[in-house]
Amino acid sequence: MTSAPNPTAALLVIGNEVLSGRTQDANIRVVAARLGGIGMPLREVRVIPDVPDVIIATVNEVRARYDHVFTTGGIGPTHDDITSECVAAAFGVPWEPHPEAWARMERHYKPGEFNAARQRMATMPRGASLIENAISVAPGFTIGNVHVMAGVPRIMQSMLDWLLPQLPGGVPVQSRAVHVFGLAEGTLAEALAAIQARFPDLDIGSYPFYRIDGSGVSLVAKGSDAAAVEQAAAAITAMLERFGKTPVQGEPPI
Amino acid sequence: MTSAPNPTAALLVIGNEVLSGRTQDANIRVVAARLGGIGMPLREVRVIPDVPDVIIATVNEVRARYDHVFTTGGIGPTHDDITSECVAAAFGVPWEPHPEAWARMERHYKPGEFNAARQRMATMPRGASLIENAISVAPGFTIGNVHVMAGVPRIMQSMLDWLLPQLPGGVPVQSRAVHVFGLAEGTLAEALAAIQARFPDLDIGSYPFYRIDGSGVSLVAKGSDAAAVEQAAAAITAMLERFGKTPVQGEPPI
Repeated sequence: MTSAPNPTAALLVIGNEVLSGRTQDANIRVVAARLGGIGMPLREVRVIPDVPDVIIATVNEVRARYDHVFTTGGIGPTHDDITSECVAAAFGVPWEPHPEAWARMERHYKPGEFNAARQRMATMPRGASLIENAISVAPGFTIGNVHVMAGVPRIMQSMLDWLLPQLPGGVPVQSRAVHVFGLAEGTLAEALAAIQARFPDLDIGSYPFYRIDGSGVSLVAKGSDAAAVEQAAAAITAMLERFGKTPVQGEPPI
Repeated sequence: MTSAPNPTAALLVIGNEVLSGRTQDANIRVVAARLGGIGMPLREVRVIPDVPDVIIATVNEVRARYDHVFTTGGIGPTHDDITSECVAAAFGVPWEPHPEAWARMERHYKPGEFNAARQRMATMPRGASLIENAISVAPGFTIGNVHVMAGVPRIMQSMLDWLLPQLPGGVPVQSRAVHVFGLAEGTLAEALAAIQARFPDLDIGSYPFYRIDGSGVSLVAKGSDAAAVEQAAAAITAMLERFGKTPVQGEPPI
Protein backbone atom coordinates (compact mmCIF):
# COMPACT_ATOMS: atom_id res chain seq x y z
CA MET A 1 0.00 0.00 0.00
CA THR A 2 1.42 3.36 -0.95
CA SER A 3 -0.02 6.56 0.38
CA ALA A 4 1.11 10.02 1.33
CA PRO A 5 2.66 10.03 4.78
CA ASN A 6 0.43 11.34 7.54
CA PRO A 7 0.69 15.07 8.26
CA THR A 8 2.53 15.85 11.50
CA ALA A 9 1.67 18.18 14.34
CA ALA A 10 3.20 19.95 17.32
CA LEU A 11 1.46 21.53 20.29
CA LEU A 12 2.64 24.63 22.16
CA VAL A 13 1.20 25.05 25.63
CA ILE A 14 1.78 28.72 26.41
CA GLY A 15 1.56 29.89 29.99
CA ASN A 16 3.56 30.55 33.14
CA GLU A 17 0.83 28.78 35.14
CA VAL A 18 1.77 25.35 33.77
CA LEU A 19 5.52 25.91 34.24
CA SER A 20 5.03 27.09 37.82
CA GLY A 21 2.97 24.05 38.74
CA ARG A 22 -0.08 26.16 39.56
CA THR A 23 -2.15 24.56 36.82
CA GLN A 24 -2.40 20.89 35.85
CA ASP A 25 -2.43 20.82 32.06
CA ALA A 26 -5.59 19.19 30.75
CA ASN A 27 -5.11 19.96 27.05
CA ILE A 28 -2.16 17.82 25.96
CA ARG A 29 -3.97 14.52 26.27
CA VAL A 30 -7.10 15.76 24.51
CA VAL A 31 -5.22 17.30 21.59
CA ALA A 32 -3.02 14.19 21.28
CA ALA A 33 -5.94 11.77 21.18
CA ARG A 34 -7.99 13.89 18.78
CA LEU A 35 -5.09 14.37 16.37
CA GLY A 36 -4.32 10.64 16.42
CA GLY A 37 -7.93 10.05 15.49
CA ILE A 38 -7.63 12.04 12.28
CA GLY A 39 -4.27 10.58 11.32
CA MET A 40 -2.21 13.64 12.24
CA PRO A 41 0.16 12.28 14.90
CA LEU A 42 1.37 14.68 17.55
CA ARG A 43 5.17 14.59 17.38
CA GLU A 44 6.15 17.07 20.06
CA VAL A 45 4.74 19.24 22.81
CA ARG A 46 6.46 22.26 24.29
CA VAL A 47 5.34 24.11 27.37
CA ILE A 48 6.74 27.64 27.24
CA PRO A 49 6.35 30.79 29.33
CA ASP A 50 4.59 34.07 28.56
CA VAL A 51 7.81 35.61 27.26
CA PRO A 52 7.62 37.28 23.83
CA ASP A 53 11.03 36.26 22.48
CA VAL A 54 10.48 32.65 23.53
CA ILE A 55 7.02 32.43 22.01
CA ILE A 56 8.13 34.05 18.73
CA ALA A 57 11.23 31.86 18.32
CA THR A 58 9.38 28.67 19.26
CA VAL A 59 6.48 29.33 16.89
CA ASN A 60 8.92 29.90 14.05
CA GLU A 61 10.95 26.81 14.88
CA VAL A 62 8.03 24.40 15.08
CA ARG A 63 5.98 25.79 12.19
CA ALA A 64 8.94 25.11 9.91
CA ARG A 65 9.35 21.59 11.26
CA TYR A 66 5.78 20.25 11.40
CA ASP A 67 2.81 20.37 9.05
CA HIS A 68 0.53 21.86 11.69
CA VAL A 69 1.11 23.71 14.96
CA PHE A 70 -1.57 24.07 17.61
CA THR A 71 -1.25 26.52 20.49
CA THR A 72 -3.24 26.71 23.70
CA GLY A 73 -3.34 29.64 26.10
CA GLY A 74 -2.61 33.33 26.16
CA ILE A 75 -5.48 34.74 24.08
CA GLY A 76 -7.55 36.27 26.86
CA PRO A 77 -7.91 39.99 27.70
CA THR A 78 -5.27 40.41 30.43
CA HIS A 79 -1.72 41.75 30.21
CA ASP A 80 -0.24 38.23 30.40
CA ASP A 81 -2.18 37.12 27.30
CA ILE A 82 0.36 37.79 24.58
CA THR A 83 0.12 34.79 22.26
CA SER A 84 -1.75 36.62 19.50
CA GLU A 85 0.69 39.51 19.06
CA CYS A 86 3.64 37.12 19.31
CA VAL A 87 2.25 34.96 16.50
CA ALA A 88 1.86 38.10 14.38
CA ALA A 89 5.49 38.96 15.09
CA ALA A 90 6.57 35.40 14.23
CA PHE A 91 4.87 35.72 10.84
CA GLY A 92 6.14 39.28 10.36
CA VAL A 93 2.65 40.67 9.76
CA PRO A 94 0.76 43.52 11.45
CA TRP A 95 -1.34 42.81 14.53
CA GLU A 96 -4.59 44.64 13.84
CA PRO A 97 -8.34 44.52 14.46
CA HIS A 98 -9.94 41.54 12.73
CA PRO A 99 -13.13 43.01 11.19
CA GLU A 100 -15.38 39.98 11.76
CA ALA A 101 -14.11 39.23 15.29
CA TRP A 102 -14.37 42.91 16.18
CA ALA A 103 -17.95 43.19 14.88
CA ARG A 104 -19.06 40.08 16.79
CA MET A 105 -17.57 41.18 20.05
CA GLU A 106 -18.91 44.71 19.72
CA ARG A 107 -22.40 43.21 19.26
CA HIS A 108 -21.91 40.85 22.18
CA TYR A 109 -20.98 43.34 24.90
CA LYS A 110 -23.20 45.98 26.45
CA PRO A 111 -22.37 49.59 25.59
CA GLY A 112 -19.10 50.57 27.24
CA GLU A 113 -18.08 46.99 28.05
CA PHE A 114 -16.13 46.36 24.82
CA ASN A 115 -13.17 48.06 26.44
CA ALA A 116 -9.49 48.21 25.42
CA ALA A 117 -8.71 44.90 27.16
CA ARG A 118 -11.50 43.04 25.32
CA GLN A 119 -10.59 44.72 22.04
CA ARG A 120 -7.25 42.91 22.31
CA MET A 121 -9.17 39.64 21.86
CA ALA A 122 -10.46 40.92 18.51
CA THR A 123 -6.96 41.97 17.42
CA MET A 124 -5.14 39.34 15.35
CA PRO A 125 -2.35 38.84 12.84
CA ARG A 126 -3.31 40.24 9.43
CA GLY A 127 -4.69 37.42 7.27
CA ALA A 128 -5.91 35.27 10.18
CA SER A 129 -9.08 33.24 9.72
CA LEU A 130 -11.31 32.63 12.72
CA ILE A 131 -11.66 29.43 14.73
CA GLU A 132 -15.20 29.22 16.07
CA ASN A 133 -16.25 27.93 19.45
CA ALA A 134 -19.64 27.22 20.95
CA ILE A 135 -18.77 28.37 24.47
CA SER A 136 -17.56 31.96 24.37
CA VAL A 137 -17.67 34.94 22.03
CA ALA A 138 -13.91 35.39 21.47
CA PRO A 139 -12.72 33.22 18.58
CA GLY A 140 -9.34 31.60 18.05
CA PHE A 141 -7.59 31.92 14.71
CA THR A 142 -5.49 30.20 12.10
CA ILE A 143 -2.61 31.84 10.25
CA GLY A 144 -0.57 29.72 7.88
CA ASN A 145 -0.17 26.34 9.54
CA VAL A 146 -0.56 27.71 13.08
CA HIS A 147 -3.85 27.27 14.94
CA VAL A 148 -4.22 29.51 17.99
CA MET A 149 -6.69 28.29 20.60
CA ALA A 150 -7.83 29.17 24.11
CA GLY A 151 -6.27 27.58 27.18
CA VAL A 152 -9.49 26.96 29.12
CA PRO A 153 -10.07 23.25 28.41
CA ARG A 154 -13.74 23.31 27.45
CA ILE A 155 -13.25 26.30 25.13
CA MET A 156 -10.15 24.66 23.63
CA GLN A 157 -12.13 21.46 23.02
CA SER A 158 -14.94 23.35 21.37
CA MET A 159 -12.44 25.08 19.06
CA LEU A 160 -10.91 21.70 18.23
CA ASP A 161 -14.37 20.29 17.44
CA TRP A 162 -14.84 23.04 14.88
CA LEU A 163 -11.30 23.07 13.51
CA LEU A 164 -10.32 19.44 13.00
CA PRO A 165 -12.95 18.53 10.38
CA GLN A 166 -11.50 21.32 8.21
CA LEU A 167 -7.95 19.98 8.27
CA PRO A 168 -6.60 17.32 5.93
CA GLY A 169 -5.90 14.27 8.04
CA GLY A 170 -4.19 11.02 7.19
CA VAL A 171 -4.70 7.38 8.00
CA PRO A 172 -6.04 7.25 11.56
CA VAL A 173 -3.91 5.50 14.16
CA GLN A 174 -5.37 2.17 15.26
CA SER A 175 -4.68 0.95 18.77
CA ARG A 176 -5.20 -2.32 20.63
CA ALA A 177 -4.34 -2.89 24.27
CA VAL A 178 -3.97 -6.14 26.18
CA HIS A 179 -3.27 -6.17 29.91
CA VAL A 180 -2.31 -8.78 32.42
CA PHE A 181 -2.09 -8.88 36.21
CA GLY A 182 0.81 -10.33 38.16
CA LEU A 183 3.47 -10.29 35.46
CA ALA A 184 6.48 -7.94 35.58
CA GLU A 185 7.74 -5.97 32.60
CA GLY A 186 11.23 -7.40 33.08
CA THR A 187 9.88 -10.95 32.71
CA LEU A 188 8.10 -10.41 29.39
CA ALA A 189 10.47 -7.82 27.89
CA GLU A 190 12.47 -10.18 25.71
CA ALA A 191 9.38 -11.89 24.24
CA LEU A 192 7.77 -8.51 23.64
CA ALA A 193 10.86 -7.21 21.83
CA ALA A 194 10.59 -10.20 19.49
CA ILE A 195 7.00 -9.21 18.65
CA GLN A 196 8.08 -5.62 18.05
CA ALA A 197 10.74 -6.95 15.66
CA ARG A 198 8.07 -8.86 13.71
CA PHE A 199 6.00 -5.66 13.32
CA PRO A 200 8.55 -2.91 12.63
CA ASP A 201 5.90 -0.48 11.33
CA LEU A 202 3.95 -0.60 14.59
CA ASP A 203 4.70 1.05 17.93
CA ILE A 204 4.44 -1.53 20.66
CA GLY A 205 4.49 -0.02 24.13
CA SER A 206 4.68 -1.53 27.59
CA TYR A 207 3.12 0.33 30.53
CA PRO A 208 3.17 -0.99 34.08
CA PHE A 209 0.12 -0.23 36.21
CA TYR A 210 -0.39 -0.29 39.96
CA ARG A 211 -3.93 -0.76 41.29
CA ILE A 212 -5.42 -1.45 44.66
CA ASP A 213 -6.77 -4.73 43.22
CA GLY A 214 -3.48 -5.77 41.68
CA SER A 215 -0.62 -4.62 39.51
CA GLY A 216 0.52 -5.68 36.09
CA VAL A 217 1.41 -4.48 32.63
CA SER A 218 -0.61 -3.03 29.77
CA LEU A 219 0.78 -3.73 26.30
CA VAL A 220 -0.35 -1.50 23.45
CA ALA A 221 0.09 -1.96 19.70
CA LYS A 222 -0.43 1.15 17.55
CA GLY A 223 -0.18 1.88 13.85
CA SER A 224 -1.99 2.84 10.68
CA ASP A 225 -2.33 -0.74 9.42
CA ALA A 226 -5.38 -2.12 11.22
CA ALA A 227 -4.68 -5.73 10.19
CA ALA A 228 -1.13 -5.57 11.52
CA VAL A 229 -2.38 -4.07 14.79
CA GLU A 230 -4.82 -7.00 15.20
CA GLN A 231 -2.07 -9.53 14.41
CA ALA A 232 0.27 -7.92 16.92
CA ALA A 233 -2.44 -7.94 19.61
CA ALA A 234 -3.02 -11.64 18.92
CA ALA A 235 0.72 -12.31 19.18
CA ILE A 236 0.88 -10.41 22.48
CA THR A 237 -2.09 -12.37 23.81
CA ALA A 238 -0.48 -15.70 22.87
CA MET A 239 2.83 -14.60 24.42
CA LEU A 240 1.14 -13.74 27.73
CA GLU A 241 -0.62 -17.11 27.74
CA ARG A 242 2.76 -18.83 27.33
CA PHE A 243 3.72 -17.21 30.66
CA GLY A 244 0.72 -18.97 32.21
CA LYS A 245 -1.28 -15.76 32.62
CA THR A 246 -4.78 -14.77 31.58
CA PRO A 247 -4.55 -11.80 29.22
CA VAL A 248 -7.43 -9.33 29.25
CA GLN A 249 -8.27 -7.36 26.12
CA GLY A 250 -8.28 -3.57 26.46
CA GLU A 251 -6.70 -1.19 28.96
CA PRO A 252 -6.96 -2.01 32.67
CA PRO A 253 -9.89 -0.34 34.46
CA ILE A 254 -8.91 2.83 36.30
CA MET B 1 19.61 43.33 46.94
CA THR B 2 22.15 41.61 44.75
CA SER B 3 22.35 37.86 44.44
CA ALA B 4 23.23 35.23 41.89
CA PRO B 5 20.35 34.60 39.50
CA ASN B 6 18.36 31.47 40.22
CA PRO B 7 19.50 28.33 38.36
CA THR B 8 17.16 27.35 35.53
CA ALA B 9 15.69 23.99 34.59
CA ALA B 10 14.00 22.17 31.73
CA LEU B 11 11.99 18.95 31.84
CA LEU B 12 11.89 16.33 29.09
CA VAL B 13 8.91 14.00 29.22
CA ILE B 14 9.99 11.05 27.09
CA GLY B 15 7.36 8.64 25.82
CA ASN B 16 5.05 7.87 22.93
CA GLU B 17 2.25 7.23 25.41
CA VAL B 18 1.93 10.92 26.31
CA LEU B 19 2.08 12.05 22.67
CA SER B 20 -0.57 9.54 21.63
CA GLY B 21 -2.96 10.64 24.35
CA ARG B 22 -2.94 7.22 26.01
CA THR B 23 -1.44 8.57 29.21
CA GLN B 24 -2.31 11.72 31.11
CA ASP B 25 0.99 13.23 32.22
CA ALA B 26 1.13 13.56 35.99
CA ASN B 27 4.78 14.59 36.33
CA ILE B 28 4.98 18.08 34.84
CA ARG B 29 3.01 19.73 37.59
CA VAL B 30 4.89 17.96 40.38
CA VAL B 31 8.34 18.73 38.96
CA ALA B 32 7.32 22.34 38.29
CA ALA B 33 6.06 22.95 41.81
CA ARG B 34 9.00 21.23 43.49
CA LEU B 35 11.58 23.12 41.43
CA GLY B 36 9.85 26.42 42.15
CA GLY B 37 10.11 25.55 45.82
CA ILE B 38 13.90 25.34 45.71
CA GLY B 39 14.31 28.44 43.58
CA MET B 40 15.10 26.61 40.34
CA PRO B 41 12.32 27.79 38.02
CA LEU B 42 11.20 25.42 35.30
CA ARG B 43 11.60 27.36 32.05
CA GLU B 44 10.50 24.81 29.46
CA VAL B 45 8.96 21.36 29.12
CA ARG B 46 9.21 19.20 26.04
CA VAL B 47 7.27 16.02 25.45
CA ILE B 48 9.14 13.92 22.90
CA PRO B 49 8.74 10.42 21.45
CA ASP B 50 10.81 7.26 21.95
CA VAL B 51 12.95 8.05 18.89
CA PRO B 52 16.74 7.96 19.41
CA ASP B 53 17.71 10.88 17.15
CA VAL B 54 15.04 13.08 18.72
CA ILE B 55 16.04 12.21 22.29
CA ILE B 56 19.75 12.71 21.62
CA ALA B 57 19.32 16.04 19.84
CA THR B 58 16.86 17.36 22.41
CA VAL B 59 19.02 16.39 25.39
CA ASN B 60 21.99 18.16 23.82
CA GLU B 61 19.97 21.25 22.98
CA VAL B 62 18.44 21.72 26.42
CA ARG B 63 21.47 20.76 28.51
CA ALA B 64 23.39 23.55 26.79
CA ARG B 65 20.60 26.05 27.39
CA TYR B 66 19.56 25.39 31.02
CA ASP B 67 21.46 24.81 34.25
CA HIS B 68 19.65 21.55 34.95
CA VAL B 69 17.68 19.10 32.81
CA PHE B 70 15.29 16.54 34.30
CA THR B 71 13.93 13.66 32.26
CA THR B 72 11.02 11.33 33.02
CA GLY B 73 10.27 8.06 31.30
CA GLY B 74 12.02 5.41 29.25
CA ILE B 75 14.28 3.74 31.84
CA GLY B 76 12.38 0.47 32.27
CA PRO B 77 13.35 -2.97 30.94
CA THR B 78 11.36 -3.09 27.69
CA HIS B 79 12.47 -2.41 24.10
CA ASP B 80 10.77 1.01 24.09
CA ASP B 81 12.83 2.16 27.11
CA ILE B 82 15.74 3.86 25.37
CA THR B 83 16.35 7.01 27.39
CA SER B 84 19.49 5.73 29.11
CA GLU B 85 21.41 4.73 25.96
CA CYS B 86 20.31 7.93 24.23
CA VAL B 87 21.65 10.07 27.08
CA ALA B 88 24.98 8.18 26.81
CA ALA B 89 25.02 8.93 23.07
CA ALA B 90 24.20 12.60 23.74
CA PHE B 91 27.23 12.85 26.06
CA GLY B 92 29.41 10.78 23.72
CA VAL B 93 30.31 8.26 26.43
CA PRO B 94 30.00 4.45 26.52
CA TRP B 95 26.78 2.86 27.79
CA GLU B 96 27.99 0.18 30.14
CA PRO B 97 27.09 -1.73 33.31
CA HIS B 98 27.10 0.54 36.35
CA PRO B 99 28.88 -1.52 39.03
CA GLU B 100 26.79 -0.39 42.01
CA ALA B 101 23.44 -0.55 40.19
CA TRP B 102 24.35 -3.95 38.75
CA ALA B 103 25.33 -5.33 42.15
CA ARG B 104 22.13 -4.11 43.80
CA MET B 105 19.88 -5.54 41.14
CA GLU B 106 21.72 -8.84 41.06
CA ARG B 107 21.13 -9.12 44.83
CA HIS B 108 17.48 -8.10 44.49
CA TYR B 109 16.33 -10.68 41.94
CA LYS B 110 16.03 -14.41 42.44
CA PRO B 111 18.55 -16.57 40.59
CA GLY B 112 17.81 -16.45 36.85
CA GLU B 113 15.49 -13.43 37.10
CA PHE B 114 18.20 -10.81 36.55
CA ASN B 115 17.81 -11.37 32.82
CA ALA B 116 19.07 -9.39 29.84
CA ALA B 117 16.07 -7.04 29.92
CA ARG B 118 16.59 -6.18 33.59
CA GLN B 119 20.34 -5.84 33.07
CA ARG B 120 19.52 -2.93 30.75
CA MET B 121 18.23 -1.07 33.82
CA ALA B 122 21.69 -1.41 35.40
CA THR B 123 23.40 -0.17 32.23
CA MET B 124 24.15 3.54 32.22
CA PRO B 125 26.34 6.21 30.67
CA ARG B 126 29.92 5.94 31.93
CA GLY B 127 30.40 8.35 34.83
CA ALA B 128 26.75 8.40 35.90
CA SER B 129 25.96 8.72 39.59
CA LEU B 130 22.86 7.01 40.97
CA ILE B 131 19.56 8.64 41.92
CA GLU B 132 18.00 6.65 44.75
CA ASN B 133 14.34 5.90 45.22
CA ALA B 134 12.40 4.32 48.05
CA ILE B 135 9.92 2.47 45.86
CA SER B 136 11.77 0.19 43.45
CA VAL B 137 15.22 -1.32 43.05
CA ALA B 138 16.22 0.27 39.74
CA PRO B 139 17.83 3.67 40.32
CA GLY B 140 17.83 6.73 38.11
CA PHE B 141 21.06 8.56 37.41
CA THR B 142 22.72 11.92 36.96
CA ILE B 143 25.33 12.66 34.32
CA GLY B 144 26.61 16.21 33.98
CA ASN B 145 23.59 18.46 34.46
CA VAL B 146 21.08 15.83 33.28
CA HIS B 147 18.98 13.95 35.83
CA VAL B 148 17.30 10.82 34.43
CA MET B 149 14.23 9.64 36.35
CA ALA B 150 11.46 7.07 36.02
CA GLY B 151 8.13 7.90 34.37
CA VAL B 152 5.88 6.16 36.91
CA PRO B 153 4.74 9.12 39.03
CA ARG B 154 5.31 7.70 42.51
CA ILE B 155 8.79 6.45 41.59
CA MET B 156 9.60 9.77 39.93
CA GLN B 157 8.47 11.62 43.05
CA SER B 158 10.59 9.43 45.27
CA MET B 159 13.62 10.10 43.05
CA LEU B 160 12.90 13.83 43.22
CA ASP B 161 12.67 13.64 47.04
CA TRP B 162 16.17 12.20 47.11
CA LEU B 163 17.67 14.36 44.37
CA LEU B 164 16.49 17.91 45.05
CA PRO B 165 18.19 18.39 48.45
CA GLN B 166 21.51 17.67 46.70
CA LEU B 167 21.11 20.39 44.07
CA PRO B 168 22.05 24.04 44.57
CA GLY B 169 18.79 25.97 44.50
CA GLY B 170 18.16 29.69 44.46
CA VAL B 171 15.72 32.04 46.09
CA PRO B 172 12.41 30.17 46.31
CA VAL B 173 9.47 31.58 44.39
CA GLN B 174 6.83 33.13 46.63
CA SER B 175 3.23 33.08 45.52
CA ARG B 176 0.01 34.74 46.70
CA ALA B 177 -3.39 34.21 45.14
CA VAL B 178 -6.58 36.25 45.52
CA HIS B 179 -9.81 35.18 43.86
CA VAL B 180 -13.18 36.74 43.30
CA PHE B 181 -16.53 35.48 42.08
CA GLY B 182 -18.68 37.22 39.52
CA LEU B 183 -16.10 39.47 37.93
CA ALA B 184 -14.85 38.97 34.36
CA GLU B 185 -11.20 39.13 33.33
CA GLY B 186 -12.04 41.70 30.67
CA THR B 187 -13.46 44.04 33.31
CA LEU B 188 -10.45 44.06 35.59
CA ALA B 189 -7.72 43.66 32.94
CA GLU B 190 -6.75 47.32 32.71
CA ALA B 191 -6.50 47.80 36.47
CA LEU B 192 -4.51 44.56 36.77
CA ALA B 193 -2.08 45.67 34.07
CA ALA B 194 -1.44 48.83 36.09
CA ILE B 195 -0.53 46.69 39.13
CA GLN B 196 1.79 44.55 36.98
CA ALA B 197 3.46 47.77 35.80
CA ARG B 198 4.08 48.79 39.45
CA PHE B 199 5.76 45.42 40.15
CA PRO B 200 7.84 44.69 37.04
CA ASP B 201 9.91 42.00 38.82
CA LEU B 202 6.84 39.94 39.68
CA ASP B 203 4.74 37.71 37.44
CA ILE B 204 1.11 38.60 37.92
CA GLY B 205 -1.23 36.09 36.30
CA SER B 206 -4.97 36.07 35.74
CA TYR B 207 -6.82 32.74 35.58
CA PRO B 208 -10.55 32.45 35.04
CA PHE B 209 -12.30 29.62 36.84
CA TYR B 210 -15.66 27.97 36.27
CA ARG B 211 -17.31 26.17 39.17
CA ILE B 212 -20.70 24.74 39.81
CA ASP B 213 -21.13 27.27 42.61
CA GLY B 214 -20.00 30.24 40.56
CA SER B 215 -17.33 31.50 38.22
CA GLY B 216 -14.72 34.16 38.58
CA VAL B 217 -11.05 34.97 38.33
CA SER B 218 -8.01 33.98 40.34
CA LEU B 219 -5.16 36.51 40.38
CA VAL B 220 -1.71 35.27 41.33
CA ALA B 221 1.43 37.27 42.16
CA LYS B 222 4.73 35.37 42.03
CA GLY B 223 8.33 36.31 42.56
CA SER B 224 11.44 35.93 44.66
CA ASP B 225 10.84 39.10 46.69
CA ALA B 226 8.38 38.09 49.41
CA ALA B 227 7.65 41.68 50.46
CA ALA B 228 6.84 42.71 46.90
CA VAL B 229 4.56 39.69 46.52
CA GLU B 230 2.65 40.74 49.64
CA GLN B 231 2.37 44.32 48.43
CA ALA B 232 1.09 43.18 45.05
CA ALA B 233 -1.50 40.90 46.69
CA ALA B 234 -2.67 43.84 48.80
CA ALA B 235 -2.92 46.04 45.69
CA ILE B 236 -4.93 43.32 43.90
CA THR B 237 -7.25 43.00 46.89
CA ALA B 238 -7.85 46.75 47.00
CA MET B 239 -8.45 46.83 43.24
CA LEU B 240 -11.09 44.10 43.48
CA GLU B 241 -12.82 45.99 46.30
CA ARG B 242 -12.99 49.07 44.08
CA PHE B 243 -15.09 46.94 41.70
CA GLY B 244 -17.50 46.38 44.58
CA LYS B 245 -16.54 42.73 45.00
CA THR B 246 -15.42 40.69 47.98
CA PRO B 247 -11.92 39.34 47.33
CA VAL B 248 -11.03 36.01 48.92
CA GLN B 249 -7.42 35.24 49.79
CA GLY B 250 -5.94 32.07 48.24
CA GLU B 251 -6.91 29.97 45.24
CA PRO B 252 -10.58 29.09 44.74
CA PRO B 253 -11.61 25.70 46.18
CA ILE B 254 -11.64 22.94 43.57
